[in-house]
This record gives sequence, structure tokens and C-alpha cells, in this order.
Amino acid sequence: MIISGKMSEALKNGSMVREMFEEGIRLKAKHGADKVYDFSLGNPDLPPPDSFLRELERTVESCDGPGVHGYMPNGGWPYVREAVADYLTETNPEIGASFKGLHAILTVGAAGAMNCALKALLDPGDEVIVLAPFFMEYRFYADNHGGSVKVAQTDERFRPDPENVVRQVTSRTRAVIINTPNNPTGAIYDEGELKALGEAMEKASRTLAKPLFLISDEPYRKIAFKGATPPSVFACYRNTLAVTSFSKDLSIPGERLGYVAVSPLLEEAGILSDALVLANRILGSVNAPSLMQRAVKNVLRESSDLAVYERRSDIMAEGLTKAGYDLVRPQGTFYLFPRSPLEDDAAFTDILREELILAVPGSGFGRPGHFRLSLCVGEEAIRASLPRFAKAMEKARDVSRKGRET
Amino acid sequence: MIISGKMSEALKNGSMVREMFEEGIRLKAKHGADKVYDFSLGNPDLPPPDSFLRELERTVESCDGPGVHGYMPNGGWPYVREAVADYLTETNPEIGASFKGLHAILTVGAAGAMNCALKALLDPGDEVIVLAPFFMEYRFYADNHGGSVKVAQTDERFRPDPENVVRQVTSRTRAVIINTPNNPTGAIYDEGELKALGEAMEKASRTLAKPLFLISDEPYRKIAFKGATPPSVFACYRNTLAVTSFSKDLSIPGERLGYVAVSPLLEEAGILSDALVLANRILGSVNAPSLMQRAVKNVLRESSDLAVYERRSDIMAEGLTKAGYDLVRPQGTFYLFPRSPLEDDAAFTDILREELILAVPGSGFGRPGHFRLSLCVGEEAIRASLPRFAKAMEKARDVSRKGRET
Repeated sequence: MIISGKMSEALKNGSMVREMFEEGIRLKAKHGADKVYDFSLGNPDLPPPDSFLRELERTVESCDGPGVHGYMPNGGWPYVREAVADYLTETNPEIGASFKGLHAILTVGAAGAMNCALKALLDPGDEVIVLAPFFMEYRFYADNHGGSVKVAQTDERFRPDPENVVRQVTSRTRAVIINTPNNPTGAIYDEGELKALGEAMEKASRTLAKPLFLISDEPYRKIAFKGATPPSVFACYRNTLAVTSFSKDLSIPGERLGYVAVSPLLEEAGILSDALVLANRILGSVNAPSLMQRAVKNVLRESSDLAVYERRSDIMAEGLTKAGYDLVRPQGTFYLFPRSPLEDDAAFTDILREELILAVPGSGFGRPGHFRLSLCVGEEAIRASLPRFAKAMEKARDVSRKGRET
Repeated sequence: MIISGKMSEALKNGSMVREMFEEGIRLKAKHGADKVYDFSLGNPDLPPPDSFLRELERTVESCDGPGVHGYMPNGGWPYVREAVADYLTETNPEIGASFKGLHAILTVGAAGAMNCALKALLDPGDEVIVLAPFFMEYRFYADNHGGSVKVAQTDERFRPDPENVVRQVTSRTRAVIINTPNNPTGAIYDEGELKALGEAMEKASRTLAKPLFLISDEPYRKIAFKGATPPSVFACYRNTLAVTSFSKDLSIPGERLGYVAVSPLLEEAGILSDALVLANRILGSVNAPSLMQRAVKNVLRESSDLAVYERRSDIMAEGLTKAGYDLVRPQGTFYLFPRSPLEDDAAFTDILREELILAVPGSGFGRPGHFRLSLCVGEEAIRASLPRFAKAMEKARDVSRKGRET
């Protein structure tokens, strides 16, 4: 094998997504793209807000001097970092402290931000705890830095259980990753839940005599239903970093812009910030894309028409419930994570595929017996898919019946 | 310490550059930016070519549909990959084989490309050989993937010595990194040198019974003096990857766009390409910035007015020679790497700083007794700096004299 053993292994593990992707391409080629209901990818289909597009044009037109496409300090253009810090101060009034430029490090998307955070915190052999179901890339991200992931299950309704989390703590634990609003469940942790988790982590830190970090992965923060605002994670635990991006709320995931926010309450925030900036430099990003940094500066409070996702979620959730699916209604994001009518979730997504529906088995998120739907397709397609979901349910019942009979 | 032990160490090693950068800011604040001769950073000061700026505007104006700022396959927009492949086929006629889209993986700059290459090839404990003097970030890049760097010195005139390289081969060696045109020396390896290196690596591969890879880091490829075209590295060794960017030739380093090119002669090019794409995805980049991919597609053959760097290099080289400096004339890039008049190169860059000249000691590049000048400043400033270089030389001679007298 010409590639490393580690990558060879990773290719095997990464191949499920790839095979699904390729099967989707085959199905679309065979039946026509409009006949296939592709709920597999979290790739926002809404246009970016006009304000962003105008700002991008304006930025490009004003970018004609030398240096505007050049290197800047590795943490980002200082005035953009300050604008992000002001936005954070404004949207986290509960913590009673101001974010400064040093607390915001601009990165290549939230994935870049998460990798900087893990690079800054992990020595080889260290562990991070994730709450299942979880975004499958976390395993790769931890492994990039010689770390590994320990899994704490959330409860039946995908609510965090601090005792489950703390049970996974060992002497090598460095951080707990939460993702709220959550991919794949759409759960948003409330203040009580976050404070309970914070207290449990505080206690565990004292026992270990070293601080555990909370890394809050929040790219879906603005996609919260019923006008809700997710609580400030910074207000619930001191040693907190948030990682996020503009990918989902501005619909620009391909442009790769995000940031790490370091809590201003953190005692050694300056050293952590230095380490994050160095991580950004040496992991290969060097800095977040210059033009996009400039373009988002004045639209930090804008977003695509995110209410669209809530309508889609309602239509899908109601349709699925009527068809007999068991699901916990999401509180945000564009995902749904219904229970699979078959215990074998991959067998069920195979049945869905017969109905030209693409979905991801829950096993891929560390929670078998479910499947994930990503609602990055229009309402019409969602409505049109519902009879097919109903048919898949019937097929699944037939399979279960036959299983019991034999 | 709240950050990892590994990052704490990296911060110490990374601090030289940082301290220099901060000292530069202090000096500029004190004396005025135009009074300080900053030859420390390789940040192109030329404007991007008009053709690129026009293409960027056009791309932004035409980017108003859904999805244009969205995710694409992790290796990049397929039609951009194909355009890059066509460019590679055209500029490497010697190899007698065509690059296809799969051979070009778009990345977050050359640093992103190098990290993808090392991630694809290295298991923890593996080694890469670098030719000194070398770009100091290679150490970090290898370490990111649990690897380490072994150093092979080039000769007095910075020419590669295949025997020196092969002497560093162990059972853990996976790759040799070359950087031509070279940062910091400006050397361009000729066909004979590359073939000799290739033959030595071929032989070493046979002895090891596993292929050694050549990673050619080529972001300065278009900055070759006297109308020269650097030879095709692909034609000199089969198991070759090239990593590069648009940072230096289009003057857009802050936008972070580059690519890895896999030799079409490589037997398992497909698997290596898959691994590189997966590396791009999981290292946090996910993909190269979408807008810039689209913008460069039609200007792959364009560049800034790179002849400017040759004029600057001539002026500086002649001025320094007149002032008594010993240097090997660069064949390309915007760097010069003169011999330090003091054995202690850091002591000499301190003297330069007294003259308000910022330069980097050669020790930082694994070659003590030299210093690096980056000519990303105008001709006038270069001319104005020459009397100060002369004065620094006098001071150095005084120091040497006193050293001998005591």
C-alpha cells in the first residue's frame, strides 16, 4: 500500500459516506436528479442573504490595492477579529465580560476551528468525550492530533446526561465536545442542562486537579425554531471554547470561514489564544481566506432566510409521524433523526434507497436504530417524498413480520 | 499550563518569528514605517494581475445562484481540477503522460497541500528528509502527523547532494521534500541534479523494498530569472507529488488556494489521490475556498509582473557584493541568502536591526552563518537600505576584530 496504514484505515471508515454519495450519483443518473430525494448531505441550498452578496461585491471592488489579498496575522485581520469579538460580547450578555480581538481566531470553517482547538489542547494519547449521536468527523479530528474519542450517550430524547459524560472521564481526558443545536438530532441544550453539565465538569476537574475544557460546536446556532435563542455556553462553564462558521447561516460552506471563540472568563485566555493562532498557522491553513474575512465583517448579524428550515422540518416531521415514524421533534438545524422501523438502520436506509430516498444510518453517528435526514431540499420535494417514506415503513413492517415468523 | 505540552514546545520554537515580527512593529511605531527596512516576511507586495482581478469580479457577479458558495467534492470543483490537470499536462510535456482531474487536488494553499501530502503518506514515527537550508515550517508539518524531519545539507552553493540525502534514509523514511525554486536561497535545481537525486532515491527504494516519495514544493515555480523554466520534477522521478499555490505568482497568499499534483506515472495514483482528498476533508479544510477556485480557473497561465523581483534581486545582490557581502546569486524567488559576516547569525541580524533592517538568521532555516532577505519591498527602499547594510558590515568587522584581539 502506497499510503500510510493510518490513512488506509481512515479510507475504509470514510468509505460509507463516499459509497452513499456515489450511489446517489448513480441513482440520479439513472432516474433523473429530480426523481431522487437526497436527504444525505448537510449542504445548505438557500441562497446567501442579499446583504452578504452586496458586501462581497463591494469588498471585491475595493480590493484593488497591494496587500488586500495578502497574508495578515495568522489569527485574522485585526479589525475583523474585533468585529467578531464585539458580536460575541453583544450576544453573550449573561457572562458580564467583554470579548476582545484576542478571543476570536478566524479559521477555515468550523472544521478548521475544531482542529485548531484540538491541536491546542491535545497531546498524543489524550481523550475527548463526545455526546452521541455525534458528527462523525470528530473521530478523525481527534485522531489528527494523536487523540481519541470516548462516547457518552445522550438519553432517549437526545438530552445530555452529565453523569454519563463524567463516567467517561479518565486521567487523559482534556475536553468534552458538545454540538448544540445538534447534528444529527436538532436538539438544543437549555440553560439548565448546560449548567448541570458545567457543574459536573467543574467537579471532575477538581478531582483530576486539572481543568477540563468544554468545546461547544455551534455552526447551527442561528437555526433555532420558534424564535428561540440558544443559551450562552460561556455563561454555564468557565473553561469554554466555541467553534463555529458562517457556513450554515450565510449559506457559504464552500468558502470555508469560521472562528474559535475563547471565553474571556478563562484565566489563561492569552496563552490559549496564542496556541490557537499557532495551530491555525502550522496545520496548513496559515489564515482564514482574506476576502471572505473582509466580506463578512459587516454582516455578522445577517443570515439566509432560516425560517425556511423550520417550515421544512414541520412538514417532514408531521408527514413522518402520520406515516407511523417515531421521532423527537428537532428544536433547530435542518436535520431530523427519526427512529428506524428496523433495528438494523443500514437495512432500512437500503429500503429507503429502493424508494429513491437517500438518508444516513444512525450507526454512523454512534446511535444505531435511527437514520438522519438533512432537509437541504425544497418543500415540494419533501412533500413528494412522504408517500415514499410511507411505503418504506410498510416494507419495513413486512420485513419485521417475516423476521418474527421465521 | 492549559495548552498541550506539544503546543507549549511549539510556541517556544515558533516564538523567534513572532518576536521578530513584534520587534518590527515596535521599530516601525518608533521610527515610522517608511524608515524601517523590513526584509523579514515573504508576503508579496505586487498587485495581483488585472486579469485575475477582472476574473474575480466576474466570478462574484455570476455567483448568485444557490450552491455556488456551497460544498463541492472535497478535492475541488471537478471542472477546476480538470483545468489544473490540463495546465499540468501542458507544462510538463517531458513526461509523455496526461494529468487528469484525479491527479490535481485543490487545497488551502501550498501549506494545506503539503499537510495533505504528509497526512496521506506518514504513519507516526515515519521520517521525511529535507534539504537544508529549508522552510522552517516543514518541521511543524511533519510533526502534525507524528512524523519527524531529517536534515541533509546542500553544498556550499546550495546545490543538492544526492549522497547526503540518501545517507539520511532509514527504514522509517517515507519521503524527501525539495523546494525549488528555493526559499531561502533562490536556487533552482537543474535537470541533471533532479535526475541524479531521482536515481539515488530509486536505488534507495529498491534497497528498502518500498517506494520513497519525492514531494516537490514549488510555489515559486514561476519566479525564475533570465526567462528560465524550471525543469519538470515529474520527469526526473516517478513517485513524485508536487505541492504549490497561487500565492506568489498571483499575489494572493491570504486567499489560501493551492493544489497537490500527483504524478500520472505513479502506479497507484488513484489510491493516493483518494487519500489526499480524504486528508483535505479531515484535516479541517474540507475543501479549498470555492470562490477562489472558480476565479483562478481561467487565469492559470497568468501572473503578477514577476520581473520586478528579478530587478530587485539584481539591485540587492550587486549592492551587497559591493559592500563586501559574500553571496550566491539566486536563480529565482524573491529571497537572498547571504553569508553572515559574523559566525553568529543572530548577533548579526541584531546589528542589522540597529540599522533598522529586519532579516531572519539562517539558523532558523537549518543553515547557520547566513541570513535571509525577502524582497517584498520596493526598489527605492532596497537602494536606500544599501548604505545601512554597508554600515552593518563595518560594525561586524569591528566586532570580529575585537573578538580576535581579546
